[in-house]
Amino acid sequence: MNKQLLLDKRPEGMPDKDTWRYETNPIPELKEGEVLIRHHYISLDPAMRGWMMDRKSYVPPVEIGEVMRAGAIGKVIKSNNHPNFKEGDCIVSWGGVQEYEITSGENCYKVDETLAPMPKYLGVLGMPGMTAYFGILQVAKIKEGDIVLVSGAAGAVGSLVGQIAKLKGCTVIGIAGGKHKCDYLLNELGFDEAIDYKSEDIMEALHAKCLKGIDVYFDNVGGEILNAALTKLRLNARVVICGAISQYNNKKEVIGPSNYLSLLVNRATMQGMVVLDYATDYGKAAQEMGMWMMQGELKSREDIYEGIENFHETFLRLFSGDKMGKLILKVI
Amino acid sequence: MNKQLLLDKRPEGMPDKDTWRYETNPIPELKEGEVLIRHHYISLDPAMRGWMMDRKSYVPPVEIGEVMRAGAIGKVIKSNNHPNFKEGDCIVSWGGVQEYEITSGENCYKVDETLAPMPKYLGVLGMPGMTAYFGILQVAKIKEGDIVLVSGAAGAVGSLVGQIAKLKGCTVIGIAGGKHKCDYLLNELGFDEAIDYKSEDIMEALHAKCLKGIDVYFDNVGGEILNAALTKLRLNARVVICGAISQYNNKKEVIGPSNYLSLLVNRATMQGMVVLDYATDYGKAAQEMGMWMMQGELKSREDIYEGIENFHETFLRLFSGDKMGKLILKVI
Repeated sequence: MNKQLLLDKRPEGMPDKDTWRYETNPIPELKEGEVLIRHHYISLDPAMRGWMMDRKSYVPPVEIGEVMRAGAIGKVIKSNNHPNFKEGDCIVSWGGVQEYEITSGENCYKVDETLAPMPKYLGVLGMPGMTAYFGILQVAKIKEGDIVLVSGAAGAVGSLVGQIAKLKGCTVIGIAGGKHKCDYLLNELGFDEAIDYKSEDIMEALHAKCLKGIDVYFDNVGGEILNAALTKLRLNARVVICGAISQYNNKKEVIGPSNYLSLLVNRATMQGMVVLDYATDYGKAAQEMGMWMMQGELKSREDIYEGIENFHETFLRLFSGDKMGKLILKVI
Repeated sequence: MNKQLLLDKRPEGMPDKDTWRYETNPIPELKEGEVLIRHHYISLDPAMRGWMMDRKSYVPPVEIGEVMRAGAIGKVIKSNNHPNFKEGDCIVSWGGVQEYEITSGENCYKVDETLAPMPKYLGVLGMPGMTAYFGILQVAKIKEGDIVLVSGAAGAVGSLVGQIAKLKGCTVIGIAGGKHKCDYLLNELGFDEAIDYKSEDIMEALHAKCLKGIDVYFDNVGGEILNAALTKLRLNARVVICGAISQYNNKKEVIGPSNYLSLLVNRATMQGMVVLDYATDYGKAAQEMGMWMMQGELKSREDIYEGIENFHETFLRLFSGDKMGKLILKVI
């Protein structure tokens, strides 16, 4: 039997318990070429909130009654002549919030559990890691000496963005919520400055801590923080729009950045990104990230909660900020 | 004696008569290497509204009591051993709103009145022309087959943006105010579609006339039109932020584009531009523009009003839209 989480209705604002429902269904027989994967960990990501909306986006919405889409990692427990995957293989997939998954292997890839523990493949070596890598290197195009501001800086993506920028010789200022996270940025990750948006006035803090302005703003949050950051752009600055977690549960319109004319004055660029576009280069990126990890130059944390039945409460931690690093649900 | 228009106080909202005052002052003696220029035409541009604000921008603000900054064209009537300019030379300068100007020649350049009448050098062969040329070719990076949307499409910049895009094999949709302007776009300039924002619902019109979405949006106006255009972006679209005339006289905050997350979904780029950055290539651009003009492939209009004493009323036409093409004040 397979316990599954299905989308039951589209939320307005913050998702509540009625947004999803659980079902336990028998596992069908495998067709020729399919494998059965037992999920060990499920990835919880801000982007999932977007996939629940019925609108055109970079992937189709999750339909009502469908298993909630999510990244997952698990092991093949049965293969019906799959050409590449065999029993015991460790597989990363878009398997969704469920205990088991049957797949022909599309959009799945095999990883080596002896090189890194499974949760790392959903974090630093998975989507968030790839997002940080391609976002800061290829979209922001950082160069030595750049001043880089990143929001959601203690999160799965932001923490890596800041560290990669440090590795490339940039000055890095991180914005995060709470003293604990800011201490982590400064003492563990080697950021140059940290701003606690929960206790500091964001404009004042930016004036004090970005005295020379910023060359890059990597935005994971949107809203007021994006708007404030725009006032600090230097000539030819780049703003990467990676996410807007402050706006995903709005019942009203998204708050647009009223300071966008700073782009004109400073000949700056604001560019959106979706990590899926870089899929052909994931391998090379993961290799470089892995090397940095082994050299102790790239740190990552996973915040792991247990039990598929605790999906809802755990998911909300993405929006309350009550987590540190990559948020993961342990299924087995 | 030299009649001059001085900035008298910084306006909030739409400038009124008290924003400026006239003075008539004697013309000082020329120093060694200076020339005296008699202005014939003064350029009226939306950017002038920005220069009146006391804030950091791409040029310093006009100070209270200073001659109002403006582009101008006129003739040298006296030279005190200037190395390059002699009596009778036709000179484009930042001479400001006044009848005469004394200059050592900085940021001035000589033009040939036999090739084009003076007003053209403030329009299609001046700043608006250069803005259109570099904005659509180098910032938007148009390529054959692109679908290009331009606002302020009957204006000095927009009308050229659209024509250059047509010359390069793009489909062009223009947004302008009023039937007269829309007819001009369709019948004179060869645009593919025109949207009258004064009589049409902008979202409905975009849905109807940009069925396949847009690859480029060239924005001169900001506000609601920018926000609506963002909903039509195609993959890897480019938005050029050239101006925001709908917002320049706001007493409150600028309206930010709440649909900016379309940049993320569509991996699109929003980039600001200031034409001054392209100064070293003006010559080459003007040559190409001139060639297109001679071949009848690039049309331009100047809307010329007379009398330096009518500056205020004429300037307001920029914001009411009650003009066609490049707005110019004839001084002599």
